[in-house]
Amino acid sequence: MRLTQAQQLCAAALSAAAEDGLLVSAAVVDAGGNLVAFARMDGAEIAGVVLAPDKAYTAVANSAPTHELAEAAAPGGPLFGLHAAAQGRFVVFGGGIPIRDAAGTIVGGIGVSGAPDPADDVRCAERALNVVHGILAEASQ
Amino acid sequence: MRLTQAQQLCAAALSAAAEDGLLVSAAVVDAGGNLVAFARMDGAEIAGVVLAPDKAYTAVANSAPTHELAEAAAPGGPLFGLHAAAQGRFVVFGGGIPIRDAAGTIVGGIGVSGAPDPADDVRCAERALNVVHGILAEASQ
Amino acid sequence: MRLTQAQQLCAAALSAAAEDGLLVSAAVVDAGGNLVAFARMDGAEIAGVVLAPDKAYTAVANSAPTHELAEAAAPGGPLFGLHAAAQGRFVVFGGGIPIRDAAGTIVGGIGVSGAPDPADDVRCAERALNVVHGILAEASQ
Amino acid sequence: MRLTQAQQLCAAALSAAAEDGLLVSAAVVDAGGNLVAFARMDGAEIAGVVLAPDKAYTAVANSAPTHELAEAAAPGGPLFGLHAAAQGRFVVFGGGIPIRDAAGTIVGGIGVSGAPDPADDVRCAERALNVVHGILAEASQ
Repeated sequence: MRLTQAQQLCAAALSAAAEDGLLVSAAVVDAGGNLVAFARMDGAEIAGVVLAPDKAYTAVANSAPTHELAEAAAPGGPLFGLHAAAQGRFVVFGGGIPIRDAAGTIVGGIGVSGAPDPADDVRCAERALNVVHGILAEASQ
Repeated sequence: MRLTQAQQLCAAALSAAAEDGLLVSAAVVDAGGNLVAFARMDGAEIAGVVLAPDKAYTAVANSAPTHELAEAAAPGGPLFGLHAAAQGRFVVFGGGIPIRDAAGTIVGGIGVSGAPDPADDVRCAERALNVVHGILAEASQ
Repeated sequence: MRLTQAQQLCAAALSAAAEDGLLVSAAVVDAGGNLVAFARMDGAEIAGVVLAPDKAYTAVANSAPTHELAEAAAPGGPLFGLHAAAQGRFVVFGGGIPIRDAAGTIVGGIGVSGAPDPADDVRCAERALNVVHGILAEASQ
Repeated sequence: MRLTQAQQLCAAALSAAAEDGLLVSAAVVDAGGNLVAFARMDGAEIAGVVLAPDKAYTAVANSAPTHELAEAAAPGGPLFGLHAAAQGRFVVFGGGIPIRDAAGTIVGGIGVSGAPDPADDVRCAERALNVVHGILAEASQ
């Protein structure tokens, strides 16, 4: 995950949010789960400082979008308690998505946080990934 | 959030608690989530040392009263696991409320903790905000 | 340590700081090291949010003013590394002082933080203790 | 501290590093110590993920450049042990600098990390502040 790609993804996520009148933070991590770029919109809540990077990290760490983890992490689920693991760094609600290259290899993750409904965080992240889809073919660690 | 305002809010919350025979702690943070004032009533449990500031921080960080977060943070809710995020600093039961200025901008947060029923913490926080409502118009970071 | 006493001590520390043109935070903990009252002056740095309570806690926890701990905590000292213990909660520079009752029993601690020179934090804490000396005779947990 | 300003500062710090053949991360926090923007150059070490934001936070929290804290935090210094306080979030080597508006009020902080010699981190941060000096007059929380 190159910085320019990470910044394009953050910018695209923030643009998507702005179009919908949302205030969010966006973070992109590399395949190691380490932050590459972060941006918090003016007025976006400070929870995003923690949640956006942690969503991106969680998506990479578990090879899954964070909104797919909730059911597994709930009581009775196969990963019950996942949200409390990793010293509280795993987030199991929507907004974190793994980023894959053309071969399907995970090369990083994006995390968006700040919308009142996390489904909107997810949509911003997905739209960012679509907008910069071209960059993903060339994405490499 | 000025110190005098924060102290008035703490005092009002403690007065409300005393009227109802409750022993609580009250904390007020600024818009950055950083503590401005804290007071623990004689005999109030020491959980309030952690919970009152963290409730206030949570309310600011998530732009919502903490009692509105419990349902969302529970299994099946849109924010399941929120209580375990942020390294355990988010509290999703009642007692934390964002403080807004006349324009609706969040200028800080109040957190009350110690009542056996968190609903009573909420009421103390709300009554504090009502009592010192006049100060909120002038509240600024 | 009663709340009224703790608040008087905080107020006295802040008054002492204001007289000297300093911006500080003040915290008072009880004999259990648990926060009773905290106040941060308008414009005082946010380090005080952490350091003032931790100085007060350190003073109680180690039965000594924090400015007396630096030498012992330094390389070659009998408590080398103390400042890194307690998950980073021990502070070994000036500003934390145990509060004793008439019999010499430690009933709490005061912590002041924010002055460019910690010696000024110490002086504010000491002046606060002198000003409210009368209350200490009656101080009880 | 607006996002556009924070991003300009990060970009300027990275440009300064690139000119000198250095690989760094840059972070900008607001007056509350909360992250606004972050960027890590391709190939820059992952320590910067933690150190750049924490340097920026430390500079704001203590109202001082982090390179001025090392001597004070060393054994025998007035702030010995500062680096171990705040649960390890204070960094006392160079690379963090408070950002002030025209009136001298601290409106945020910049942190740069990654150069083999922290003196180079400092220079990158300083050059970033110089390059975008014009934006500081208008900087507001």
